[in-house]
Amino acid sequence: MTQEKTYQPPKIWQWQPGNGGQFANINRPTAGVRQEQTLPRGEHPFQLYSLATPNGVKVTVMFEELLAAGHTGAEYDAYLIDINAGDQFGSDFVAINPNSKIPALLDLSGEQAIRVFESGSILLHLAHKFNAFLPTELSARTECLNWLFWQMGSAPYLGGGFGHFYSYAPEPMAYPIDRFTMEVKRQLDVLDQHLAKHDYLAGDQYSIADIANWPWYGALVLGRLYDAAEFLQVNDYRHVLRWAKAIDQREAVQRGRRVNRNWGDEAFQLSERHAASDFA
Amino acid sequence: MTQEKTYQPPKIWQWQPGNGGQFANINRPTAGVRQEQTLPRGEHPFQLYSLATPNGVKVTVMFEELLAAGHTGAEYDAYLIDINAGDQFGSDFVAINPNSKIPALLDLSGEQAIRVFESGSILLHLAHKFNAFLPTELSARTECLNWLFWQMGSAPYLGGGFGHFYSYAPEPMAYPIDRFTMEVKRQLDVLDQHLAKHDYLAGDQYSIADIANWPWYGALVLGRLYDAAEFLQVNDYRHVLRWAKAIDQREAVQRGRRVNRNWGDEAFQLSERHAASDFA
Repeated sequence: MTQEKTYQPPKIWQWQPGNGGQFANINRPTAGVRQEQTLPRGEHPFQLYSLATPNGVKVTVMFEELLAAGHTGAEYDAYLIDINAGDQFGSDFVAINPNSKIPALLDLSGEQAIRVFESGSILLHLAHKFNAFLPTELSARTECLNWLFWQMGSAPYLGGGFGHFYSYAPEPMAYPIDRFTMEVKRQLDVLDQHLAKHDYLAGDQYSIADIANWPWYGALVLGRLYDAAEFLQVNDYRHVLRWAKAIDQREAVQRGRRVNRNWGDEAFQLSERHAASDFA
Repeated sequence: MTQEKTYQPPKIWQWQPGNGGQFANINRPTAGVRQEQTLPRGEHPFQLYSLATPNGVKVTVMFEELLAAGHTGAEYDAYLIDINAGDQFGSDFVAINPNSKIPALLDLSGEQAIRVFESGSILLHLAHKFNAFLPTELSARTECLNWLFWQMGSAPYLGGGFGHFYSYAPEPMAYPIDRFTMEVKRQLDVLDQHLAKHDYLAGDQYSIADIANWPWYGALVLGRLYDAAEFLQVNDYRHVLRWAKAIDQREAVQRGRRVNRNWGDEAFQLSERHAASDFA
């Protein structure tokens, strides 16, 4: 019998601080403001508070795509939220996103400031606002939203499940790794079979469904997430790979990936973004 | 050293069938059709293929709410998908939802049949179609969508994380249970702090944000999920409890919970639903 096998949960769960692997110091069983903290604000209609993780990249890619498509009203200021420093628990941030996760957006383009949180909600909000990257014909539009919601419900198994247990947990555990690996491979196969028949997720048009999925499943097959390309045999998903490579070539995507990045190659980092010239 | 501590993942993951606790027999690392299987079809504009799990209940509650509000165009036929028998891998089902999860909807109300999958996508599709349970004012509408997407991204930690490791895994494992319990309690606290200030998630109006969240977080604090009420100390979340109880009183909710249910109290089960009189 191993220790794991003899474990029995208590009647009432008790928090044991610091017992959670990487990021354990910032995770708690409670929500809300931990410190008073003012957020900076720029001149543009959209104020983004984010970090270049997959969920953050969705939104910076969306803004760069909108600007590249000529929607000049989509100018934005992007400020870096240092999640290791706990910026997401500051009072101003929590007022925008009570869930304390990046990305968080303040839409100042109308008469009233509007808070937008959850990356999927932000993508849909911007797509509606600019009537862009969302098909207008009902059937294609529905298919786009199907895959947008699919990403929201599926990627937690990739990030919070597979990624955590494969890369961040204090030690490798066979059962959780097996469980989440099987699910991630199933998800990749769902995408692969769909992309075998369609250029993009919603059909023949690039849309917010692709913008949402690419930073997770595209990055995964491109070998950029969790150093897991060999483990998952990502090259088997050749239609996903074709789709991922095509999107990776887009200039707006290359720009969006750099915004709010504070790790890796320094030349690729752009911790804040306020104007197109910042990329130069 | 325990067995878990000495585990090292292989270079390339290999599937070991049957190694996954409850539901292990239906889970695989591949997607797509497993058998040719025709789905029945009724006379109504909406054909729902589902089961009364939390994700299924979202949609049957939505239909019953629409009908209770006088939207006679929302008549639906609901057929039971037996996930233990693998109905979700049948050819007709996969054609509607390539992800092989309930609920799946076929919208026959227009000129063209439209497939809708992912419970959040279905709720939004119906809310748009009937202009109901979605605020029209932009700020409230955005807040509604924020919480709809929040549910989609958060509940996998409750269902696929906490629920799996607390109730379905072949043996209790301390680390995964601790990890997902902490996150679920944090999520309950997010809701509790928000509902301390608002009657409903989007503000003062009952909306699809509530319809999406209630079958998960409402059922949890009402003690109906995973037998975990004491473990999670759900009564501490008194604003969530107030909200959950208020929604539980709604007639449409009581109806919606019964549809496509094939377990528990037989008098409460309604495995198929074709007309309001079926509830009598």
